[in-house]
Amino acid sequence: MELNFDSYGLIPAVIQDVKTKDVLMVAWMNSESLKKTIATGETWFWSRSRKELWHKGATSGNLQKMVEMRYDCDGDTLLIMVEPAGPACHTGNQTCFYRALEE
Amino acid sequence: MELNFDSYGLIPAVIQDVKTKDVLMVAWMNSESLKKTIATGETWFWSRSRKELWHKGATSGNLQKMVEMRYDCDGDTLLIMVEPAGPACHTGNQTCFYRALEE
Repeated sequence: MELNFDSYGLIPAVIQDVKTKDVLMVAWMNSESLKKTIATGETWFWSRSRKELWHKGATSGNLQKMVEMRYDCDGDTLLIMVEPAGPACHTGNQTCFYRALEE
Repeated sequence: MELNFDSYGLIPAVIQDVKTKDVLMVAWMNSESLKKTIATGETWFWSRSRKELWHKGATSGNLQKMVEMRYDCDGDTLLIMVEPAGPACHTGNQTCFYRALEE
């Protein structure tokens, strides 16, 4: 594999529900969170606001079990298919993309 | 709507096929490409490598007709449901995410 992390050492990861195919969230990974995701089979991200590793669901219980990881043609984005244990969004919505843009 | 563009004035957009729900690609928008996408009903991006506006499919013919635009809980990512006229990827694959990551 050849992945292109950005100048901050980060790569965006699109998280998709493997059953419903809904896009649940987009978060960022650094190489350490990517390694932990692969090693544990659960999603780990890098929180840009808190500047720390973030094991998705560690506090809420809403872990995301990784089923498959894909990457795009230019290797600068990940797509991770997951089985979520609960809502992805901190608002309680199943997906973070619960709002349509009204013009 | 309240969108949070990054320090480069960009926001990532996840492009999803409205029928198959496959994630086709992720690209970046600035405010001008977002306005053009809304005005034309077809996807426009900002090419970070070429540093220019990019009307998806203008040369290949593989336009993406926007069906719905969503945004996430913290307003820093877009999700656009499209009807694609052809493959999203310059490689000819339907989606840019045609490879699984082998460890």
